[in-house]
Amino acid sequence: MTDDYLHTWIGSSTAERITVAGRDLAADVMGSLTLTELAFLLVTHRVPTAGERRIVDAVLVSLADHGITPSSLAARLTYTGAPEAIQGAVAAGLLGAGSVFLGPAGDTAMFLAAALRDAAPAPPEDPAAALLAVAETAVSDLLAAGQRVPGLGHPVHRNEDPRTLRLYALAREEGLLGAHLRLLRMVADVHEERTGRHLPINGAGAGGAALADVGFPPSSVRGVVLIARTAGLVAHLVEEAERPIGMPLWLEAERRASAAAPEPR
Amino acid sequence: MTDDYLHTWIGSSTAERITVAGRDLAADVMGSLTLTELAFLLVTHRVPTAGERRIVDAVLVSLADHGITPSSLAARLTYTGAPEAIQGAVAAGLLGAGSVFLGPAGDTAMFLAAALRDAAPAPPEDPAAALLAVAETAVSDLLAAGQRVPGLGHPVHRNEDPRTLRLYALAREEGLLGAHLRLLRMVADVHEERTGRHLPINGAGAGGAALADVGFPPSSVRGVVLIARTAGLVAHLVEEAERPIGMPLWLEAERRASAAAPEPR
Amino acid sequence: MTDDYLHTWIGSSTAERITVAGRDLAADVMGSLTLTELAFLLVTHRVPTAGERRIVDAVLVSLADHGITPSSLAARLTYTGAPEAIQGAVAAGLLGAGSVFLGPAGDTAMFLAAALRDAAPAPPEDPAAALLAVAETAVSDLLAAGQRVPGLGHPVHRNEDPRTLRLYALAREEGLLGAHLRLLRMVADVHEERTGRHLPINGAGAGGAALADVGFPPSSVRGVVLIARTAGLVAHLVEEAERPIGMPLWLEAERRASAAAPEPR
Amino acid sequence: MTDDYLHTWIGSSTAERITVAGRDLAADVMGSLTLTELAFLLVTHRVPTAGERRIVDAVLVSLADHGITPSSLAARLTYTGAPEAIQGAVAAGLLGAGSVFLGPAGDTAMFLAAALRDAAPAPPEDPAAALLAVAETAVSDLLAAGQRVPGLGHPVHRNEDPRTLRLYALAREEGLLGAHLRLLRMVADVHEERTGRHLPINGAGAGGAALADVGFPPSSVRGVVLIARTAGLVAHLVEEAERPIGMPLWLEAERRASAAAPEPR
Repeated sequence: MTDDYLHTWIGSSTAERITVAGRDLAADVMGSLTLTELAFLLVTHRVPTAGERRIVDAVLVSLADHGITPSSLAARLTYTGAPEAIQGAVAAGLLGAGSVFLGPAGDTAMFLAAALRDAAPAPPEDPAAALLAVAETAVSDLLAAGQRVPGLGHPVHRNEDPRTLRLYALAREEGLLGAHLRLLRMVADVHEERTGRHLPINGAGAGGAALADVGFPPSSVRGVVLIARTAGLVAHLVEEAERPIGMPLWLEAERRASAAAPEPR
Repeated sequence: MTDDYLHTWIGSSTAERITVAGRDLAADVMGSLTLTELAFLLVTHRVPTAGERRIVDAVLVSLADHGITPSSLAARLTYTGAPEAIQGAVAAGLLGAGSVFLGPAGDTAMFLAAALRDAAPAPPEDPAAALLAVAETAVSDLLAAGQRVPGLGHPVHRNEDPRTLRLYALAREEGLLGAHLRLLRMVADVHEERTGRHLPINGAGAGGAALADVGFPPSSVRGVVLIARTAGLVAHLVEEAERPIGMPLWLEAERRASAAAPEPR
Repeated sequence: MTDDYLHTWIGSSTAERITVAGRDLAADVMGSLTLTELAFLLVTHRVPTAGERRIVDAVLVSLADHGITPSSLAARLTYTGAPEAIQGAVAAGLLGAGSVFLGPAGDTAMFLAAALRDAAPAPPEDPAAALLAVAETAVSDLLAAGQRVPGLGHPVHRNEDPRTLRLYALAREEGLLGAHLRLLRMVADVHEERTGRHLPINGAGAGGAALADVGFPPSSVRGVVLIARTAGLVAHLVEEAERPIGMPLWLEAERRASAAAPEPR
Repeated sequence: MTDDYLHTWIGSSTAERITVAGRDLAADVMGSLTLTELAFLLVTHRVPTAGERRIVDAVLVSLADHGITPSSLAARLTYTGAPEAIQGAVAAGLLGAGSVFLGPAGDTAMFLAAALRDAAPAPPEDPAAALLAVAETAVSDLLAAGQRVPGLGHPVHRNEDPRTLRLYALAREEGLLGAHLRLLRMVADVHEERTGRHLPINGAGAGGAALADVGFPPSSVRGVVLIARTAGLVAHLVEEAERPIGMPLWLEAERRASAAAPEPR
């Protein structure tokens, strides 16, 4: 190891060998690890247990783009103009994964981790009460600042987000219901108590908490969920090549917009 | 099902339920399918067998960006300027997955599939001889047109690409050594015979052939491999946030370029 | 000038001075050159004449995204999800400028330049006849290969593209009606004669030819027109921030798609 | 005008006519407006005066990417992998225009506009004293919050940014030295007084203030400067196609990183 800044733990190669995460790619990674396990290894520097892997996959499959979303529409419309460069259409779809969509997974993980970090150490005799105190402080601070609570609320799943219930059940089943998921539920309860409004824990928020619980650094979550989104976008584009939505959507939009346009002066 | 063009098989949601690929996401996908299996399902419309899943994962982990590549450098340099928008840095990295890097996986799948499609049906008594004839025609056509053979040659792995040997071994082990992988090997042999040059089958080419063999439409391969690349890019960016390469690389490049610059006239 | 590959003619800076295209940026570029003139200078290595500048601006303003297009819709939908990263929304819009939309400007310039380059030198006594021969060969070759003629045809402006007529008039007015624009018109005429179908010269094709005539390398045209597109996209996004289309478009699309979706099995 | 949300002021087209900003594109825009003037018109809904146009062009040419920057390197490295999709390389370059580079132009405009908006109306007898009070409050607030002052400081131009001096001179020359530029200078002075550290007004900050002074909505500035950046990136990519930096940079980086990599265990 020299002191050149130009090096990475992730991988390297010579004429004969490719090394990934300190392992021989051909001998010890191919055939042994799933893509999900490799992603876990590359980010956290260890291989997940079977239970952790199951939780991570559950989160990722829950956040692949299902259905018509702004991201999948943007990807399809980009494909309409540049079908020869599918990487551009996937990139366009990913670019919409910001503060409004998908980004909240990472924002929730960061919010929960910060609340846990700032809290006084829990008295060993009553960890649940300690966690509740953390939730109360965190919600109070956000409400006082007039900010939204990350991970709560969904425009379509107004009562319960079906992904959330399932993720909590899986985490319990695998013995991986950790501090982030527990705190998030308390946060939701405290929020409802304080405001009188029921906002369900959304799938992105629950997913971000679950990823933090199994060991992903909270700051990595915004990136990690993009892997899932890429899978969804690729599927949308394969379908778009066979049965286009982009072109008829444009033609309809253009027709409606031109009907609405005033004559030039 | 109405006749509106605005619909997709991939997924949909109501207030209570999210449907993905015709299944209930919470009940039948989360906890049951890995991300790789979901990607397979969304693109091919069926769940892979265990063997197929193992091959797909082997291809994907072999094509995640290992080490310093133009893609990972572009992603890191983008992160340098916009660390608040990690989706943009991932997108920048994906945009370099074109005709030169990673794209050859899809190009190889398309090339092999076209050669197989154009060939006369194989006489049942000697499928190997029939496949050899396909390889000979395909290589002849490319050489006559002055074009490169997709899937052959690598700037670093000049003798053998370690991923290729492993992938062929895995495919044989799983009983999934299909027409695309077989044809690709014959193509490499015929090419060497005709030109006297040894060009190994590269990992992208072998990966593309393997994906076609397990059932991915050849036209989908260029997209599918982007899922793997996203995983690698995310790992690079998580590392970049902790130990930056982008900023020192820029400062070194700027210093060297300014030393080389003439004075303004 | 060292022999380090890391240098560029475009610009450099020291603590006191910024040099662009060999000029002092503050003293000799700011206040003196328009953005269009700088782009011309950076690509062609000379400042345009007033007439050339007028043609380039006419091309650029004609190719800024007017109205609702797949590009502007993709940009707006990306903004819906990530309003904090406007560069991502602009990038998403640009990614659709490929082989179908806007790319044809560059493709036309390349096609015309190749045809002119391949042609035998024109006999000085009759340049028009020589150019006609070039057009006939070029059209014949494309028709024989079953390919479309770049620069012809438009889904909306089926008879005449209003930008084309104006651009030819401006080029004549400025004495800049060069070989590329002349050849393109002959190509359109020959194509109609041979096929019996009237396909107007589209604005992208005429723009590409005009840029080549004033001195842009044909291979640069695909890039140069992106400057115009960026201007249009930025305007769309400024409007989107005030009066959103992306969110209601998504909600309408989601509603229609979910109405069309079958129940999960 | 219907009540459909799908319409835009920017433009529309029919078979015979293209309308941009309420004008006939062919008759009243092409040949009459420069790209800069069109961008001004599309964003502010009026044509700039000659003086305003000169200031806007001065800002834009000052912010086109000069020299080797993280953005231009990312664009060049992307081109290395996908030279057939130049729009992707330009997009990759734009994606780095975030909070660290170029974004500060918009951030400065927003900061100055907010400070002006929050201030009590200036007593007519002494506008300079009133502006100074605004600067003092604004700097105090930022320092108290431990935040940086937008628009101040530059890693290379540590004493003075040459673009800033020139821009102030041009604005004065054109009679367009408005509240934003004036306030920014006072902010820099107050900051130096309070902290004892000299941080020059950087080119991005001055550019953002100047664009706000001539009439761009502060929230539009982050987008508007991307037009300039696109011009610079396109020039870099035209050069890259002729004299590549991306490929040798990758090979050098790969070689250095592999030398630094440990053996796989």
